[in-house]
Amino acid sequence: MQSLFKTIALVPRHNTPAIAEPIRRLARMLADEGVRVLIETESAQEHGLGDFDCVDREDIGKVADLVIVLGGDGTMLGVARLVAPYRTPLIGVNQGKLGFLTDLPLGDMERMVREMLNGAFEPEERILLETSVWRDNVEIAQALAFNDVVFSRGSTGAMIEFEVFIDRKFVYSQRSDGLIVATPTGSTAYSLASGGPIMHPSLPALALVPICPQSLSNRPIVINDTCDVEFFLTRGHDARVYFDNQSDCELREQDRVMIRRYRNTLRILHPTGYDYYDTLRLKLHWGARLH
Amino acid sequence: MQSLFKTIALVPRHNTPAIAEPIRRLARMLADEGVRVLIETESAQEHGLGDFDCVDREDIGKVADLVIVLGGDGTMLGVARLVAPYRTPLIGVNQGKLGFLTDLPLGDMERMVREMLNGAFEPEERILLETSVWRDNVEIAQALAFNDVVFSRGSTGAMIEFEVFIDRKFVYSQRSDGLIVATPTGSTAYSLASGGPIMHPSLPALALVPICPQSLSNRPIVINDTCDVEFFLTRGHDARVYFDNQSDCELREQDRVMIRRYRNTLRILHPTGYDYYDTLRLKLHWGARLH
Amino acid sequence: MQSLFKTIALVPRHNTPAIAEPIRRLARMLADEGVRVLIETESAQEHGLGDFDCVDREDIGKVADLVIVLGGDGTMLGVARLVAPYRTPLIGVNQGKLGFLTDLPLGDMERMVREMLNGAFEPEERILLETSVWRDNVEIAQALAFNDVVFSRGSTGAMIEFEVFIDRKFVYSQRSDGLIVATPTGSTAYSLASGGPIMHPSLPALALVPICPQSLSNRPIVINDTCDVEFFLTRGHDARVYFDNQSDCELREQDRVMIRRYRNTLRILHPTGYDYYDTLRLKLHWGARLH
Amino acid sequence: MQSLFKTIALVPRHNTPAIAEPIRRLARMLADEGVRVLIETESAQEHGLGDFDCVDREDIGKVADLVIVLGGDGTMLGVARLVAPYRTPLIGVNQGKLGFLTDLPLGDMERMVREMLNGAFEPEERILLETSVWRDNVEIAQALAFNDVVFSRGSTGAMIEFEVFIDRKFVYSQRSDGLIVATPTGSTAYSLASGGPIMHPSLPALALVPICPQSLSNRPIVINDTCDVEFFLTRGHDARVYFDNQSDCELREQDRVMIRRYRNTLRILHPTGYDYYDTLRLKLHWGARLH
Repeated sequence: MQSLFKTIALVPRHNTPAIAEPIRRLARMLADEGVRVLIETESAQEHGLGDFDCVDREDIGKVADLVIVLGGDGTMLGVARLVAPYRTPLIGVNQGKLGFLTDLPLGDMERMVREMLNGAFEPEERILLETSVWRDNVEIAQALAFNDVVFSRGSTGAMIEFEVFIDRKFVYSQRSDGLIVATPTGSTAYSLASGGPIMHPSLPALALVPICPQSLSNRPIVINDTCDVEFFLTRGHDARVYFDNQSDCELREQDRVMIRRYRNTLRILHPTGYDYYDTLRLKLHWGARLH
Repeated sequence: MQSLFKTIALVPRHNTPAIAEPIRRLARMLADEGVRVLIETESAQEHGLGDFDCVDREDIGKVADLVIVLGGDGTMLGVARLVAPYRTPLIGVNQGKLGFLTDLPLGDMERMVREMLNGAFEPEERILLETSVWRDNVEIAQALAFNDVVFSRGSTGAMIEFEVFIDRKFVYSQRSDGLIVATPTGSTAYSLASGGPIMHPSLPALALVPICPQSLSNRPIVINDTCDVEFFLTRGHDARVYFDNQSDCELREQDRVMIRRYRNTLRILHPTGYDYYDTLRLKLHWGARLH
Repeated sequence: MQSLFKTIALVPRHNTPAIAEPIRRLARMLADEGVRVLIETESAQEHGLGDFDCVDREDIGKVADLVIVLGGDGTMLGVARLVAPYRTPLIGVNQGKLGFLTDLPLGDMERMVREMLNGAFEPEERILLETSVWRDNVEIAQALAFNDVVFSRGSTGAMIEFEVFIDRKFVYSQRSDGLIVATPTGSTAYSLASGGPIMHPSLPALALVPICPQSLSNRPIVINDTCDVEFFLTRGHDARVYFDNQSDCELREQDRVMIRRYRNTLRILHPTGYDYYDTLRLKLHWGARLH
Repeated sequence: MQSLFKTIALVPRHNTPAIAEPIRRLARMLADEGVRVLIETESAQEHGLGDFDCVDREDIGKVADLVIVLGGDGTMLGVARLVAPYRTPLIGVNQGKLGFLTDLPLGDMERMVREMLNGAFEPEERILLETSVWRDNVEIAQALAFNDVVFSRGSTGAMIEFEVFIDRKFVYSQRSDGLIVATPTGSTAYSLASGGPIMHPSLPALALVPICPQSLSNRPIVINDTCDVEFFLTRGHDARVYFDNQSDCELREQDRVMIRRYRNTLRILHPTGYDYYDTLRLKLHWGARLH
């Protein structure tokens, strides 16, 4: 039986020597299956995998039919933003602990990937956020985020003040350490640590979660993912906006940041039998009891 | 110009003598507009409004084209469950403080209602929950809820233990004071006091909010409103399930409670210019600052 | 070397057949050390230990120099209230999981107890609460609590309303599911599940922790343990006050409940090297990480 | 009757032109009472009060018998740290809203201060924290704090990792945005926004409050104010420690920060009849209800 995917790009976590051997193993298995294998260029050099074809990070989405990430959720986030414009599906193999996104265990990777190439997978569509930063009516930055867009005070230690608008309606002004705009994917990351709710990945929603708000009645709000969110910084030196905590942009007072759902969803392929609640229980130690 | 609604039922809050005069005033105004006015029977007797036609509570949905509630959100909840099977729309006039559901001020009621009869309103659809309680494979109770279905320990003081399934998938077992399953409408009621998120009324979602869970990682979860939720009581004497905190059913160990979105939505008519976030800001005192 | 304690009472958990053998083992070891051993009467009958001298629950404090509890924190709480008037010290052996109070493991019990009888222990003083319930100027109930005094709504589902005074000064009126007044010992029990802070056992403090308060700014308060706390029920049918969740008293509107630190502290003996923070880390799974 | 205080320093808030007139008024009143009045040098210049004697900030504690602060809690914090080594008492007049520390209203200031000079005041002792920062066994910084010592990630956006020791005992390792060590005074400031408990000013306690901890079981802990707290940074670039959010020190991995109660308390003088709970109710809007 032939693989449904002709060209597969492999993207391992950087600075993880132990990953060289499994990535080589996976690449060989895929080649044996008649798949054209590409390895992300930098990783290929780092891990001494020059005998396989390479592909530059920014070209992955264009040329691959499928991307397999080996690493943790952090690696997956970076690749997700990269391939989202091309709708290339992703498979995540966790090197270490089970991740929310990287759900194939390294040990059983080859068998599971082989089955998935033959169609035994459960696809899941996840939303991303598209953000643009405006200063004096000029757009100064643009970015995608898969987990969250985080507004945060800088290192001066002083809280920031801002206004939030949803679909052009004023929602509140707030004094706090910042604000998280999280997708369902991001709801189990920083948002959860700040008191935000868990959102099922299939929920068409965004959560607005204040970070240490001065007013005790400023609580998380969940809204439709079709809403436009606008953040307007009224006071705060050294404030910043972070995208998946992997890139950021400095903000000045009077800057406006517009956030909306990105036009494409990201497709993640899970092994058959995947259950989000199983992952949740494992990651949050819900088995554990206090008594 | 003629009213869009031919037959309008008026339902005032009980045990509120001060409401007799406004309800009479509103009834007269409506009659003058050529509307057929019906007053809920018990209220008519209580408030001495025998000169108007009456309608029994359970017939309101059947005979009225529109129901106007005078009172607070509690009164509105009771009527909502009553008329939901008939899709009769509701208008809420608050007697006292602004409510989340009763958004017309008593003082300006006549002018605003008159405009709304002529079409100047913004309709909003809100979901309800349909619950059935099963003991030994027999359905022993059924109820609708507009705000929330609340599982709660009784007066023995001991926490209860239960399991939750979503779409027949096991989610968690929990030891706590109970669990709230809230609609977006109910998200600003008891759910908020228990740490649940605010959900915009248009979000097609339910929140599962634990009440004082023993495990500190048991956090609110927001799911699609198309999900079936199952609650299975594994341990607890004197546990109960409450519907909008207005009716309840005692539970025994091994009872199963099934919750799903009700087939009809409830239609609430707001005056033109209504803004949910305005109400939120007012009710949660978001203007107030600590410093 | 002779035991510092001449007469030791043993109190095992009820309804736990597996505990008969270890209790017999411990009793024999103590007898061999020349200690007079007494077994709590009901347990002696339940576990077939009639060959040892017995002591009724209410006499334990009077006749024993030391009490050894075998069971969990719940068993320990009950004994603590019983012996507090006599200042009899306690040792706790956990049957099952490590407890906050029962810190000797069953497996190593004999060796550790023998060392403790020779003086190798670290004593710790813990406060208790003394509560009296007043109706129409008559005291209708009195109780001790080691963990907490909990005011709670009953099974009607409606929140209760009450006022709190500290040292006769008005603090707040509150609408909520109830209020917890916790000792440092109780701070890791129900209070923690309701959002209260952990308090080190040596802190001379009480925490007032609201349960699901309607007002989002009603937050836990920590006060000196020398303060008198007064709870005044202004509204609520079927409200109750619970003592360590092991006994309770029904409350009516206008009832007043006075809480103050009990004149005696309870002395718990820990094995040498005991570290409260070790227990905390284990019980709260602080080793566990989300990533 | 003669003032109990011979030399009084006045310290107004900076950059607040409206304060010039009241400060002049107060200074004249005091002079009329036979008091020697000193105005903080920079303020005297800023507000054109050169006709009064001046005193440099760092000399205030040495030469004044009493300091009167006009401004907000922020101004008070700065002066508190300045005069703590000299035990000089403070009176706070709020220019604007009631403060937790500045409790005399500007409007009634003259009458109230006059009464207080004659002894009609209630003194209150509050603790401060003394912090020293160690790098490679060298003390690189020292500071006092009246509200809190805050460890915080910098502007890289990544959480920091650290270990905490209390009285040289390991408490936990934590991954979070940071940690607040708060005095009772600081318990109603940043600590409250991060989920910390309110502590009565007379409680001899410190609170350790995690900021957005990744592990959901990392909760606030309240300990005796006699404890030594040690913070050890294991991972984090651009981390900082802040003192009352008014000064700070950059931290590097492996830095150790020691925190202990300062040897002196700060004495605040309140008008007769002062009630901490009144202030709390006002500042936290406890009168307000959701329904």
